[in-house]
Amino acid sequence: MGSMSIPSGVLWGCQTQRSIKNFPIGGPESKMPLPIVHAQALLKKCCAKYNLEKGKLTEEVGRGIIAAADRIMSGDLDAHFPLVIYQTGSGTQTNMNVNEVLSNYAILTLNGTVGSKSPVHPNDHCNMGQSSNDSFPTAMHISCAKVISEVTLVGLRKLLEGLRKKSEEFEGVIKIGRTHCQDATPLTLGQEFSGYAKQVEYGIERVERAMGGLMRLALGGTAVGTGLNTQKGYDAEIAALIAEETGLPFITAPNKFEALAAHDSIVEMSGSLNVVAVSLNKIANDLRLLGSGPRSGLGEISLPENEPGSSIMPGKVNPTQCEAITMVCAQVMGNNTVITVGGAQGHFELNVFKPVMCASLLHSARLIGDAARCFTDNCITGIVANEDRIKELVNSSLMLVTALNPHIGYDAASKIAKNAHKKGISLKESAVESGHLSGEDYDKWIVPDNMVGPK
Amino acid sequence: MGSMSIPSGVLWGCQTQRSIKNFPIGGPESKMPLPIVHAQALLKKCCAKYNLEKGKLTEEVGRGIIAAADRIMSGDLDAHFPLVIYQTGSGTQTNMNVNEVLSNYAILTLNGTVGSKSPVHPNDHCNMGQSSNDSFPTAMHISCAKVISEVTLVGLRKLLEGLRKKSEEFEGVIKIGRTHCQDATPLTLGQEFSGYAKQVEYGIERVERAMGGLMRLALGGTAVGTGLNTQKGYDAEIAALIAEETGLPFITAPNKFEALAAHDSIVEMSGSLNVVAVSLNKIANDLRLLGSGPRSGLGEISLPENEPGSSIMPGKVNPTQCEAITMVCAQVMGNNTVITVGGAQGHFELNVFKPVMCASLLHSARLIGDAARCFTDNCITGIVANEDRIKELVNSSLMLVTALNPHIGYDAASKIAKNAHKKGISLKESAVESGHLSGEDYDKWIVPDNMVGPK
Amino acid sequence: MGSMSIPSGVLWGCQTQRSIKNFPIGGPESKMPLPIVHAQALLKKCCAKYNLEKGKLTEEVGRGIIAAADRIMSGDLDAHFPLVIYQTGSGTQTNMNVNEVLSNYAILTLNGTVGSKSPVHPNDHCNMGQSSNDSFPTAMHISCAKVISEVTLVGLRKLLEGLRKKSEEFEGVIKIGRTHCQDATPLTLGQEFSGYAKQVEYGIERVERAMGGLMRLALGGTAVGTGLNTQKGYDAEIAALIAEETGLPFITAPNKFEALAAHDSIVEMSGSLNVVAVSLNKIANDLRLLGSGPRSGLGEISLPENEPGSSIMPGKVNPTQCEAITMVCAQVMGNNTVITVGGAQGHFELNVFKPVMCASLLHSARLIGDAARCFTDNCITGIVANEDRIKELVNSSLMLVTALNPHIGYDAASKIAKNAHKKGISLKESAVESGHLSGEDYDKWIVPDNMVGPK
Amino acid sequence: MGSMSIPSGVLWGCQTQRSIKNFPIGGPESKMPLPIVHAQALLKKCCAKYNLEKGKLTEEVGRGIIAAADRIMSGDLDAHFPLVIYQTGSGTQTNMNVNEVLSNYAILTLNGTVGSKSPVHPNDHCNMGQSSNDSFPTAMHISCAKVISEVTLVGLRKLLEGLRKKSEEFEGVIKIGRTHCQDATPLTLGQEFSGYAKQVEYGIERVERAMGGLMRLALGGTAVGTGLNTQKGYDAEIAALIAEETGLPFITAPNKFEALAAHDSIVEMSGSLNVVAVSLNKIANDLRLLGSGPRSGLGEISLPENEPGSSIMPGKVNPTQCEAITMVCAQVMGNNTVITVGGAQGHFELNVFKPVMCASLLHSARLIGDAARCFTDNCITGIVANEDRIKELVNSSLMLVTALNPHIGYDAASKIAKNAHKKGISLKESAVESGHLSGEDYDKWIVPDNMVGPK
Repeated sequence: MGSMSIPSGVLWGCQTQRSIKNFPIGGPESKMPLPIVHAQALLKKCCAKYNLEKGKLTEEVGRGIIAAADRIMSGDLDAHFPLVIYQTGSGTQTNMNVNEVLSNYAILTLNGTVGSKSPVHPNDHCNMGQSSNDSFPTAMHISCAKVISEVTLVGLRKLLEGLRKKSEEFEGVIKIGRTHCQDATPLTLGQEFSGYAKQVEYGIERVERAMGGLMRLALGGTAVGTGLNTQKGYDAEIAALIAEETGLPFITAPNKFEALAAHDSIVEMSGSLNVVAVSLNKIANDLRLLGSGPRSGLGEISLPENEPGSSIMPGKVNPTQCEAITMVCAQVMGNNTVITVGGAQGHFELNVFKPVMCASLLHSARLIGDAARCFTDNCITGIVANEDRIKELVNSSLMLVTALNPHIGYDAASKIAKNAHKKGISLKESAVESGHLSGEDYDKWIVPDNMVGPK
Repeated sequence: MGSMSIPSGVLWGCQTQRSIKNFPIGGPESKMPLPIVHAQALLKKCCAKYNLEKGKLTEEVGRGIIAAADRIMSGDLDAHFPLVIYQTGSGTQTNMNVNEVLSNYAILTLNGTVGSKSPVHPNDHCNMGQSSNDSFPTAMHISCAKVISEVTLVGLRKLLEGLRKKSEEFEGVIKIGRTHCQDATPLTLGQEFSGYAKQVEYGIERVERAMGGLMRLALGGTAVGTGLNTQKGYDAEIAALIAEETGLPFITAPNKFEALAAHDSIVEMSGSLNVVAVSLNKIANDLRLLGSGPRSGLGEISLPENEPGSSIMPGKVNPTQCEAITMVCAQVMGNNTVITVGGAQGHFELNVFKPVMCASLLHSARLIGDAARCFTDNCITGIVANEDRIKELVNSSLMLVTALNPHIGYDAASKIAKNAHKKGISLKESAVESGHLSGEDYDKWIVPDNMVGPK
Repeated sequence: MGSMSIPSGVLWGCQTQRSIKNFPIGGPESKMPLPIVHAQALLKKCCAKYNLEKGKLTEEVGRGIIAAADRIMSGDLDAHFPLVIYQTGSGTQTNMNVNEVLSNYAILTLNGTVGSKSPVHPNDHCNMGQSSNDSFPTAMHISCAKVISEVTLVGLRKLLEGLRKKSEEFEGVIKIGRTHCQDATPLTLGQEFSGYAKQVEYGIERVERAMGGLMRLALGGTAVGTGLNTQKGYDAEIAALIAEETGLPFITAPNKFEALAAHDSIVEMSGSLNVVAVSLNKIANDLRLLGSGPRSGLGEISLPENEPGSSIMPGKVNPTQCEAITMVCAQVMGNNTVITVGGAQGHFELNVFKPVMCASLLHSARLIGDAARCFTDNCITGIVANEDRIKELVNSSLMLVTALNPHIGYDAASKIAKNAHKKGISLKESAVESGHLSGEDYDKWIVPDNMVGPK
Repeated sequence: MGSMSIPSGVLWGCQTQRSIKNFPIGGPESKMPLPIVHAQALLKKCCAKYNLEKGKLTEEVGRGIIAAADRIMSGDLDAHFPLVIYQTGSGTQTNMNVNEVLSNYAILTLNGTVGSKSPVHPNDHCNMGQSSNDSFPTAMHISCAKVISEVTLVGLRKLLEGLRKKSEEFEGVIKIGRTHCQDATPLTLGQEFSGYAKQVEYGIERVERAMGGLMRLALGGTAVGTGLNTQKGYDAEIAALIAEETGLPFITAPNKFEALAAHDSIVEMSGSLNVVAVSLNKIANDLRLLGSGPRSGLGEISLPENEPGSSIMPGKVNPTQCEAITMVCAQVMGNNTVITVGGAQGHFELNVFKPVMCASLLHSARLIGDAARCFTDNCITGIVANEDRIKELVNSSLMLVTALNPHIGYDAASKIAKNAHKKGISLKESAVESGHLSGEDYDKWIVPDNMVGPK
């Protein structure tokens, strides 16, 4: 295929350079995410450990690879991973990029010649007992599981905590309920927030459940899932080493054919994050409407004033945190489409939408975690209930009439509410006017405080 | 493949019966939409005309097929089309269902024996000069173009008319604007509705533009696009006959390979309907929020009270038309996914997601047309502006301060607004308190009527 | 709102009739799915039982409602449920349709006057202790859980069984692997099918896991989630009665605000079905390609010949079952979009995309179950391995060279394969020509039978 | 809101710094795309020109802003735009970031104090006659239109050219057609490529048509669409200046309310790119299957060998360009979901999903352009037809039998094909054996060369 000229000072080799040349797609924004690169290094460290222990690598080569892998994992060599997502669909070129950097870095430390492949060969040593086809999906699972544990779940748990606190803080604040965006029977603001908290609580459980699939690692399947060129037991041992290195309970995938040819576990996790996005969109939407105003909206709550809202309207404050997180939600839903479309199109022994699927899941995972944290700190925590406004709205509501159903029936109650609405009078006036009940009955039966729970 | 037993009294034949047996998927809700069946009959009528004229069919057979096709198009034989969408992806079984019914109905009228294939053969005569591969996509285009012309565009034009009328009716009603759901500078309610009307106007143009692709017919491509077993010129002549029969400007597709192997024109039209769904969702969402209340919402407009809103809350009225149409929007967005996923997965000379793509587009087209009409009649037309409430809200707004920018600058104006908000005083009080302007200046500079357009 | 004229002979009442008039959207294909109606009847039966036992309903009224509910559940009254999906987003009109039919049917059996609301009132009795806002989502969960148990999971388990049998049947058939659609190292056809089986096995687990969310019932929340107009403990008791009636382990939702305002559990289940669609699309796609031919494709397997494939090409047989199921997959992915879009847009105390979300999930559930069963019976079970063809292809593969890596290294092996490809010679010839190994070495090291697993 | 500490050496100000602090979401990969920043600078240059000419800005201030804008547009100040996409949904913070950098850069050149807002004020001068609400959507249209003209369409036109050349090159190569992935009647490889070329040709037209919507600019609407604080005619003049500056035929949007509150034109363009993605996915998928092998696939064409394909399988070559472009297609489909979801959720006078919608469209536009170019250069141009293999496959096909239909009828032809398949004999042998025709008839009637077009 001809020779390649490689810039001086870089640790990558011919295959990386060839990929740079062949895939000028998307620019720097389309770089292969670093968590994948670091996960590749992590698994290669574990493979080198295994191969060293089994005598398949010399001490020099094995130790060299392990040290190089640690260096990559530290982030110090990030500049040596220039490839983009839109390359070969197996991620082979990123796998080779990692192999080449491991090889060259190890060679450097051994005073060898960069690019000589000796004494540390990118394929024969760094890739020993691996194929891109099993190592890349392994890196997919490791990187996603790590970001989900360390960012997504941490952010969501913080948000859950924030919502629960507000739910408690607001438990005595009785307000009008709204169904179909129309006035309905009352509830407490704390109850309203308890619904949000529950959505997030279930969201965390959904994400945790989907982690099960990510725990299954493809490594040991090599080229097509058979494990050609490995020993029996290798797959389980290597998964144990990865579990130890990451602190996450990885296991070897019981069926390697599924693990290479399909990425259903990635699709599953994306689906769980999609549910979380649906939840967060609803919550943020509610909050911006409840906080709308300051004078011509619902105005039941005030959101923190974090920055000037407008370049033209002086003094304007906007629910910008709600906007940021709903944009994140739209993005996560879109990423779910990418992952679904990619996941559905595997062929035979290999799905070749690996890089775009993994990058999209990492994107969603990072965004949800970051946004949940940011939303908690910069919005939820600072929400204030405007109790006067809330009281005014609940007291004028016609839907308090619902409490009359058990006493006078739906049809009579309906007439009272409609009459009040038509004449613009209070519900009590209309009730008394109807002749179905006295003012004393009204005061006894219609007590918002008694309407926020079963008897 | 063995013999098939066919129920008595039906006009379909073995291939239809075999499909019933082989595809028990989805039940009656999954029936192949009748517009496709009627369009298949229409094109077969045109083919029979052509073949009769060219002497390829005898008078008896040609006339028999034409009469049978007319009968199918009338809807009288709808019960004889029992197949579901989830059959062969080329629609061959529905094509054969049509061929079999044509054949048997014609045989009946000629006093022959149903099922004998004589004197009218389902393949040799009814399918003459066709393959499922070109006739089914032709029926796709015919049926979609007809429903879009007759239902979708009619509904959208009615909605446009309704919105324009309201925009004119409300042109003098000055109200608070809302950006980020927060109070902003004023506009008229008529201007607000003019934006909705413009969205629909552009939507109509988008759908009309996408009709161009649907005008290109595959017929004449036969099995793989080459036109094997047809004569030169057949394709153009048959398109002209279809144009005449439908009153729509169909032409023959310049490239039949594209027309069989891809359904990009279906994807394009679905994309246009997707934009319309996006528009309608926004409009309906606004209307339900502007009409929220009756006492604890924004309450700037009242939507018609069409039905009791609640089974438990007496006297409740809900924005149900907004809800129906936003559900339609969600459905249309989902149909766009179906069509995109199906469109992307053609193989070689044939896309085999034809039935589900066409059914989904017909679904979207019908729903948008119906919902637009229903929404106009049962919601838009009856909207009333609550002028007192509107006036109250605009007058209390702090964002009128924006009119001071050219006089005292953004920073000073900002302080006035914030001070008013903080102290709960009027903007004028705050303005005068600031020392930047007098009460007279205020009354001269801050006039909502002068704020709804450029100077 | 004026009076309504109701056709004679129907059991529905004014509110149903009003909905027919106000929502002429989508035609018969858009009917509210019957499983929802039946589930509404089921829960109303349980409510009547409860209210009877607590003395809130008389024997006459309570028994009347229970008998009417049983009749609806039997399907005998299906013609009395004419409403469409695109109605109020709370499903109130379908709830009232059920209440009206219950009332009228019970009145009929008590020799009363249809439409008189006496002695069985649609709201006061049939809807006692309920709101549409809690009963409709309860019907959503019941109907979806039933269809998923009875259709989806049954179909998927059958498919799993079918794939496992084939995996066993084909365990000795060594074939070429394909990665990137290119020749790769060998595996057995049984291993290939084991991957498919594993995908389906995990899919079943995913669906089962998502059933947890559907087990939580909203009933007891009434209008806004507070449980107004109910007694403490009602919610748990009613869930127990529903569990008993259905045989499914339903419980009361711990938080009713979440259960009314959000349908995240519906979104979650749709996400699980989306993963299943992704899996099935991959499997069906593989099978149609492996079975491609008969003479100019891969031809490794033969699919059953179920029907004539073409209206123009005589003798053609097509992978129609693969086509039907991949169309189902596209539909399920589209339904997932509908559900995601609807789920994300709830407002305050109520999500008003209930009907379209539930109908879409029922659609997906039914389609996957039906298609999985149909695909097993009419495709999987009849697949035959074309062993001669398989052997021919595996033996000519250049990728057997991979077995040389441990002996001569990646770089030397690479040259052998490339040389064979370039010269069009066999791998063995090229290997010997290279000088890296002898013919004996080759025969010892390259044994496809030894390449389908680790050592 | 308290004071902010800004790092030394940067040109941004407090509002930018506040956004950095408030929106720590997504990291560097989530940076606001530079084309938006550059477009903002471009429009501000035009505003400054206008304001200078009208005497609203002094020469010093006006020239200062223009020079600063030119500097931003050159890319030299890119490091001063640190904000992310997930900020306020109006893009106000990026608008202010641009205003602050313009102000500070101009102040620097005038030897003023950075951060002093004097003599060039970020709001009063740099934002003069603008709101974020009209300037950001203007920047959206400018940036997208530029990238689509300069990257997307250029790439697609190159691909069209490449496909047309191949279509001509292959016009004499007769090959087997495949429908349902099964052998069908023949066509030429040139015809097959002509279908691909036509898809791309129509795709270009679709994108060009959607450019119309992007030509309409919001500028002049200011805060809510009314044009408050501008002069009559300003909007049209400023659009003309932008048209002149960009060389693209921009006009002022006829309705500014639509232009701020909705981004349907962005959704429309995304829909057009979605159709292109559908087309490219189909083409790339076909090519990887037609090129499958080298020995055990279809092998009708050879794709260029650009790089080693495997880290474990020596000598393997993969269709990596097809993989990259199909990943791009999945991404574009996902971006279409983001844009659809964002576009549907505008509220009142402003859609606040602006940054994520614009970033997603730019992403799609760039990816399609880059990938189309890369795919042409590194795949299409180098495709070679394997004529021997193609001939072998077409000659063995049973579907040549279709040419007998006009002579012996579908049913007889069907038996011949099935008999040949069953016995494994040639079509001619089976035809003669059937007694329906002689060997001479066969040779006269079945001539692949005569089967690739109408008579």
